[in-house]
Amino acid sequence: MAACNHAIVARMDSPVALIPQLAAHLVAAGGKRLRPLLTLASARLCGYPADDANQRHVGLAACVEFIHTATLLHDDVVDESQLRRGLASANAVFGNKASVLVGDFLFARAFQLMTDDGSLKVMQILSSASATISEGEVLQMSTQNDLSTSVDQYLEVIHGKTAALFAAACRVGAVVAARPEAEELALEAYGTNLGMAFQLVDDALDYAADQAVLGKTVGDDFREGKITLPVLAAYAAGTEEDRRFWRRVIEDSEQTPEDLDHALDLIARTDAIETTLDRAATYARAAHAALDIFPDSHLRRLLQDTAAYTVSRGS
Amino acid sequence: MAACNHAIVARMDSPVALIPQLAAHLVAAGGKRLRPLLTLASARLCGYPADDANQRHVGLAACVEFIHTATLLHDDVVDESQLRRGLASANAVFGNKASVLVGDFLFARAFQLMTDDGSLKVMQILSSASATISEGEVLQMSTQNDLSTSVDQYLEVIHGKTAALFAAACRVGAVVAARPEAEELALEAYGTNLGMAFQLVDDALDYAADQAVLGKTVGDDFREGKITLPVLAAYAAGTEEDRRFWRRVIEDSEQTPEDLDHALDLIARTDAIETTLDRAATYARAAHAALDIFPDSHLRRLLQDTAAYTVSRGS
Repeated sequence: MAACNHAIVARMDSPVALIPQLAAHLVAAGGKRLRPLLTLASARLCGYPADDANQRHVGLAACVEFIHTATLLHDDVVDESQLRRGLASANAVFGNKASVLVGDFLFARAFQLMTDDGSLKVMQILSSASATISEGEVLQMSTQNDLSTSVDQYLEVIHGKTAALFAAACRVGAVVAARPEAEELALEAYGTNLGMAFQLVDDALDYAADQAVLGKTVGDDFREGKITLPVLAAYAAGTEEDRRFWRRVIEDSEQTPEDLDHALDLIARTDAIETTLDRAATYARAAHAALDIFPDSHLRRLLQDTAAYTVSRGS
Repeated sequence: MAACNHAIVARMDSPVALIPQLAAHLVAAGGKRLRPLLTLASARLCGYPADDANQRHVGLAACVEFIHTATLLHDDVVDESQLRRGLASANAVFGNKASVLVGDFLFARAFQLMTDDGSLKVMQILSSASATISEGEVLQMSTQNDLSTSVDQYLEVIHGKTAALFAAACRVGAVVAARPEAEELALEAYGTNLGMAFQLVDDALDYAADQAVLGKTVGDDFREGKITLPVLAAYAAGTEEDRRFWRRVIEDSEQTPEDLDHALDLIARTDAIETTLDRAATYARAAHAALDIFPDSHLRRLLQDTAAYTVSRGS
């Protein structure tokens, strides 16, 4: 992971001063580096030697993190977010223009890293994941403020915006180890299901978490009128009066300062958080099961425990 | 070119409805398709057969146009432009969010098109051009409103934001034809110099053109405080009073409705348009000369005339 952090910082360098400045802000903000860790762990699980002569997994882990960081930068512009991981977001500090353009730079740099790797298969997986992410983001924007969004559409959104990159991050780890396709697909399935669980929990936390722990503003999704499962579940299980409330605050974007508390009440009363976390748990179990084709090992158990842990942080 | 237009429309398709909708808006807006034409023409100049079995140049031409369109979408967001090619810009019609996200989608799709082509060399050229474009855009933002920007810095900006993609568009045409590196480099030099000439003329037109002909709002660069050669030349050749004017309108962004006319006067009085077009003509001559290593042909003359024509539209 140290090598991966080093690769990330090194490849964010540019003669254009603002790029390393903004990059330093992002690196300082830290984050869990979950996606690059998945690439590193997947390569190891597939027996990639990961010695001095075999460092492809490090470059690809950095590449995955660049794609993720680029989408974060653009998300924060699109959502007008002021906080990211508990610190001022890049757009709040450097402005929207810089965030859009440096996001583009990171995206382009990610493609250079893939090209450096030289595997066409890796490029297909990561470029296709990048397109799926954008489609998920556009779909999410299209469903914003729309309570007639179906649960399936919501799941399609989170598959695109989150699970697709988790899946690709895992799969490329198997590809560098040159393992049989069954192992690639098992890791891809693990990543997809883990990503779904992760995003469901994230969406639950936006209505359930302590702001200081969460490192983001609670109620962000609510204020933006974002359609997530807690809202869809509370709306579906609500009374006619509840639904009038949801339509006013989400569809008409008419919110008073007290509305978030009322929304949290309704979500608690309709067990919408439990509904969301139950679904996350189902995906987490599927992620766990996907790795059963690998022989038992400390690393396999670690990855399987990660799936369970992802859900436990929500409850 | 019909095949290329067809490829562009086909590859902009997506199950997410907003993507083809916004794509249709962009396709309707038309544009000169100069960059994909350069790829097609370069491939032909290098003897690429371009028959039914040899269509790589078409996919790469579409790829080049996608990269260009993605940067246009993001540029219009960053510049808050209302018009693009005489029509309402995508951000004005669909909003900034959609423009950022669909730009990302087109960028990702461009990388899928490169991956489909399968040549590592092509991917290196185009991914590196993409990173250079972003660097140019960030540098342009950093120099905005700053009259101490040097002419060299300005040239670095336009090399990044415009000439790099012209160069890559030409060079990949030579790569698919599998020609000796000297021909690749000649076409790359042609593209670089043509792109520099093109952007210089574009920057001159922003202070010189008839709005209806230009298809963009005259004075856009002025209102945004963008640092272009007409302004740098007028500032350098101006009196102390002129310079106070430029500092107020460009550095302090304090503009009254009459200021554009006064700026045009100062630019005329200091021959700043001629200075800009003279430099464009120098680049156009270099573009012309770069192709001299190819045997004389109708196509070679067409490309060489394009360089001269680029400058003539400015005078």
